Amino acid sequence: MLAMPITMGKEVLAVMMAVNKVNEPEFTKQDEEVFSKYLSFVSFVLRQHHMAYLYNIESRKVQVLLWSANKVFEELTDIERQFHKALYTIKAYLNCERYSIGLLDMTKEKEFYDEWPIKLGEVQPYKGPKTPDGREIIFYKIIDYILHGKEEIKVIQTPPADHWSLVSGLPTYVAEHGFICNMMNAPADEYFTFQKGPVDETGWIIQNVLSLPIVNKKEDIVGVVTFYNRKDAKPFDEYDEQITEILTQFLGWSLLNTDTYEKMNKLENRRDIAYEMLMYQTKATTGEIESILKYKEKLNTNIIEDCEEKQLIQILVLTRWMYTVRKGYRSVTYHNWRHGFNVGQTMFTLLMTGKLKKYYTDLEAFAMIAAAFCHDIDHRGTNNLYQMKSASPLAKLHGSSILERHHLEFSKTLLHDESLNIFQNLNKRQYETVIHLFEVAIIATDLALYFKKRTMFQKIIDTCEKMETEEEVIKYISIDPTKKEVIMAMMMTGCDLSAITKPWEIQSQVALMVANEFWEQGDLERTILQQQPIPMMDREKGDELPKLQVGFIDFVCTFVYKEFSRFHKEITPMWDGLQNNRVEWKSRADEYDEKMKVIEEEKKKQEANTAPKAEEDLGSTGDDKKSKTCQIL
Amino acid sequence: MLAMPITMGKEVLAVMMAVNKVNEPEFTKQDEEVFSKYLSFVSFVLRQHHMAYLYNIESRKVQVLLWSANKVFEELTDIERQFHKALYTIKAYLNCERYSIGLLDMTKEKEFYDEWPIKLGEVQPYKGPKTPDGREIIFYKIIDYILHGKEEIKVIQTPPADHWSLVSGLPTYVAEHGFICNMMNAPADEYFTFQKGPVDETGWIIQNVLSLPIVNKKEDIVGVVTFYNRKDAKPFDEYDEQITEILTQFLGWSLLNTDTYEKMNKLENRRDIAYEMLMYQTKATTGEIESILKYKEKLNTNIIEDCEEKQLIQILVLTRWMYTVRKGYRSVTYHNWRHGFNVGQTMFTLLMTGKLKKYYTDLEAFAMIAAAFCHDIDHRGTNNLYQMKSASPLAKLHGSSILERHHLEFSKTLLHDESLNIFQNLNKRQYETVIHLFEVAIIATDLALYFKKRTMFQKIIDTCEKMETEEEVIKYISIDPTKKEVIMAMMMTGCDLSAITKPWEIQSQVALMVANEFWEQGDLERTILQQQPIPMMDREKGDELPKLQVGFIDFVCTFVYKEFSRFHKEITPMWDGLQNNRVEWKSRADEYDEKMKVIEEEKKKQEANTAPKAEEDLGSTGDDKKSKTCQIL
Repeated sequence: MLAMPITMGKEVLAVMMAVNKVNEPEFTKQDEEVFSKYLSFVSFVLRQHHMAYLYNIESRKVQVLLWSANKVFEELTDIERQFHKALYTIKAYLNCERYSIGLLDMTKEKEFYDEWPIKLGEVQPYKGPKTPDGREIIFYKIIDYILHGKEEIKVIQTPPADHWSLVSGLPTYVAEHGFICNMMNAPADEYFTFQKGPVDETGWIIQNVLSLPIVNKKEDIVGVVTFYNRKDAKPFDEYDEQITEILTQFLGWSLLNTDTYEKMNKLENRRDIAYEMLMYQTKATTGEIESILKYKEKLNTNIIEDCEEKQLIQILVLTRWMYTVRKGYRSVTYHNWRHGFNVGQTMFTLLMTGKLKKYYTDLEAFAMIAAAFCHDIDHRGTNNLYQMKSASPLAKLHGSSILERHHLEFSKTLLHDESLNIFQNLNKRQYETVIHLFEVAIIATDLALYFKKRTMFQKIIDTCEKMETEEEVIKYISIDPTKKEVIMAMMMTGCDLSAITKPWEIQSQVALMVANEFWEQGDLERTILQQQPIPMMDREKGDELPKLQVGFIDFVCTFVYKEFSRFHKEITPMWDGLQNNRVEWKSRADEYDEKMKVIEEEKKKQEANTAPKAEEDLGSTGDDKKSKTCQIL
Repeated sequence: MLAMPITMGKEVLAVMMAVNKVNEPEFTKQDEEVFSKYLSFVSFVLRQHHMAYLYNIESRKVQVLLWSANKVFEELTDIERQFHKALYTIKAYLNCERYSIGLLDMTKEKEFYDEWPIKLGEVQPYKGPKTPDGREIIFYKIIDYILHGKEEIKVIQTPPADHWSLVSGLPTYVAEHGFICNMMNAPADEYFTFQKGPVDETGWIIQNVLSLPIVNKKEDIVGVVTFYNRKDAKPFDEYDEQITEILTQFLGWSLLNTDTYEKMNKLENRRDIAYEMLMYQTKATTGEIESILKYKEKLNTNIIEDCEEKQLIQILVLTRWMYTVRKGYRSVTYHNWRHGFNVGQTMFTLLMTGKLKKYYTDLEAFAMIAAAFCHDIDHRGTNNLYQMKSASPLAKLHGSSILERHHLEFSKTLLHDESLNIFQNLNKRQYETVIHLFEVAIIATDLALYFKKRTMFQKIIDTCEKMETEEEVIKYISIDPTKKEVIMAMMMTGCDLSAITKPWEIQSQVALMVANEFWEQGDLERTILQQQPIPMMDREKGDELPKLQVGFIDFVCTFVYKEFSRFHKEITPMWDGLQNNRVEWKSRADEYDEKMKVIEEEKKKQEANTAPKAEEDLGSTGDDKKSKTCQIL
């Protein structure tokens, strides 16, 4: 016998043999040479064939991966749907008669009331097989893909232990140990007893079985996939193992998606629950509304006319909305309902007394007043920068105009409740207009955007000033939604800052409230963020308030009220009030400067004397500082 | 010249040529034959080589897909991190000197304040290239992977338009049209002007460029990947295109993950914001606490001792918690604070008057009373089945004991606020004990679990009854946490149902409140779910209340109070009260039966007469029904 191996790399692909030399007792040296020469040609053909086989394997892998990826990324879905979509899509590349997926129960812990009977010794604890992470092995569902004969998919809910696919114990074994099991001749296996005869009415019989665990990135076994009977009747080989392993690995990894799906659903539900509870707690109660409107008495009068009843309901909704907005404001030092109410009231005044109403429809004016009432709802007494620095959920949600976007969102949320929706009778187009105005008006109260709109506002007024008739001005503005928005946005600023135009007794008090809220934020920055607050928020620098107020008037407020007064002379009283307050603040700022100059000179004089003595004096200056907030008034 | 093609399938791999026959003017027929025979051998070798090349391509595809999948599924992350992780991991399979990814700005719409200048005509609208879905093409970041020489990664934030990778205009072109562009000889290209000389200090020069768009499942172009200079200096071929296309396709699909990541973050933030607002609205205010405790007066007395101050703070926390729990209850018909308070109070009575305290530590007893007060917090006046049927967010969140799990979660949420945490002074182990008791106690109020614990409870009492000394009983129960839990769980049921043991005047009133809440749910089922309510919840069957009460006493309540009275004779008054109420309900039920019998007979008699007349009479019976709720009392 003359035998030689055909190899590819280190792998032996085949052995070629020549048996029984004709007419000679053995093969000669020459035979060997000829044999070897022919061998190299034969082996060449064989290698070519093998390479083509390997190429086919690899391209099936690519297809399996691509198609399952395509399905897995289609949308977020639950584990069953995801596995099903992926496994169904790749059926053409699997080259087997059947395959099935068994899904494992992922519950690790029992409820306390199910543990009681075990703990009390009334029920035996579970002693059956468990997954490596300690779960009882329970297949709650089997999905069976039948590719031989008529294609079919069977779903078996909570399959019995003697179901043909489970009875051998192989899926349980795979789930217990996490091994890949390739049973070349399943019926002959001694360890696992597979069903010998046909498993169902199709007459189909198990021959070869390849079973793999699906493992997620946390290394938990979540299911078992089993492939039955290669289509060419051969046993599954190492390349089949490779393809199916790649597949199950990918499916296992992709469970990140199904976990996310579940987590997301839970989050959505939790958010919905919290919002519903929030609305329940915030919404004005019947009792609260009754404390304002004596509507029950009215309703009890049996003789109310149709139009009266409709009106009454409108008043009820408006009252409930207003009371709820009020409850939505927190009792912080400055940005509380008092401020919210003032801004709404000032918007009304600007429109009516200030005669700005003429550019807007009734609906627009209503929306503007409503937005003004809502504009600082649920303010927390700290500004946008503080939200960012403290990394509050609000700052994580909104990239800019953080609080303003929150005021807007909450205002809109209130309107989602029909019993609070003051715009419920509007048609879709009107409702969208109102919501758009809410958006522009409330976001516009972010002072960071103030400088963006300044020149645009000024240009409009410049143009109007040159016009000869009022009609011309009204037309110029009314026909252009953008101009109306710019003016409205500046009106919001005018309302928001209007305390600065109030009589001195009021302005001085309000300024202190604003300052106190700033100082409280400064305290938080020092204690919680461990940062040094800016002078405006630094309680220790409270003496500088008059100077800060003068600066604020000069750089922010003056423009607003001066331009509005130029635009509509009816608004001049606000401009006058502002100028008067500037005089007051300026005199206090000068007074403080004077005082500081004296102290500075005193200090210099003393520094010329001994050093220790100077320190003592500085201490007493510090004491003065602490009680300065009262001096402002 | 003699020329012949070498083919593989339909593809021409090469052409073999013999040029200028030696000593003859042309090739002979015989030459052709020899040539053809040699050709088949040469082509065999060539095909083998080509197949190996194709195999290599396919296995690189598998690797690229597997490695990027491995990274993409590692965790949820943002687009930059995900792309970076995937692209870095597969660098070995890319076979090029450099590659880079340009990330596109995904913002579609501008803020209103940025649109104003355009709408007012002050700024020219954008006229540059846009993506197919209408975004301005802005690369906000470029990540540059350098594989030649010393490996390096460069990140260019908001790259200038003349950055070497952008200056040619190719990435913008790819982003605009979504084409794959393979530039065989980039420097020679006329349409795109690539940088001719070295792009940086390494002296590296662009030769070949392959650029592809990354497209998500919504068909939006989110970025552009560009590969430079194949390592063997050849241009990129169709197989390179295949590999990179598979890669970019996969990356594009995997954007589902980064979208989810962002969505999830937003959801989490929204939930956090809603919870914080809910806590603000629910938590007892200083004013509300002051209305109960006059603590400010006390605190103003400057001479309070240390221990007194500590006590005062404890009382403050307890009061704030209690008031907040009260506010957490809704003003529904039955499951309101009145019920919550009663259950807490009854728990106290069972422990003290009922002498059950002896099995529990002070801390356990405190936890049990606190849990009893909280046990129905935020009840909506509808039961678990209604949550399921109406698919409320609560039902989507909790699989079983829906409302009970909600009461528990909200009770625990309240404790997360330090100023409400009545257990703040406990150590970790103690705190965990308390939370566990809360869980068992509150979930145990789900009547669906009542039958699970009945026999366990009875067995404990049977055993205790046979014991001779009290000490023996105390020891038997106290050393076993499970027995204590079972008894506590039954105590919770005893408290929850205790209204049924109250003097008849009270019980009859409370029963009506329960019934009214049921009927309200029945109304909702009829109007909202459009289902027929069960008799217990059917307002039309209100007359059957006494019968239902008798049934409820017999099948649920009797066991509880009879067994507790057998266990501790001090609890007998509850058992007596129950029996008395049964007599009352029974007599009313019998009365009703009697009345119905008479009506039934009357009806039969009338049916013997004319049919139309009978109908009229039935109508008047219906009227009687409507006003029956008062008859019960």
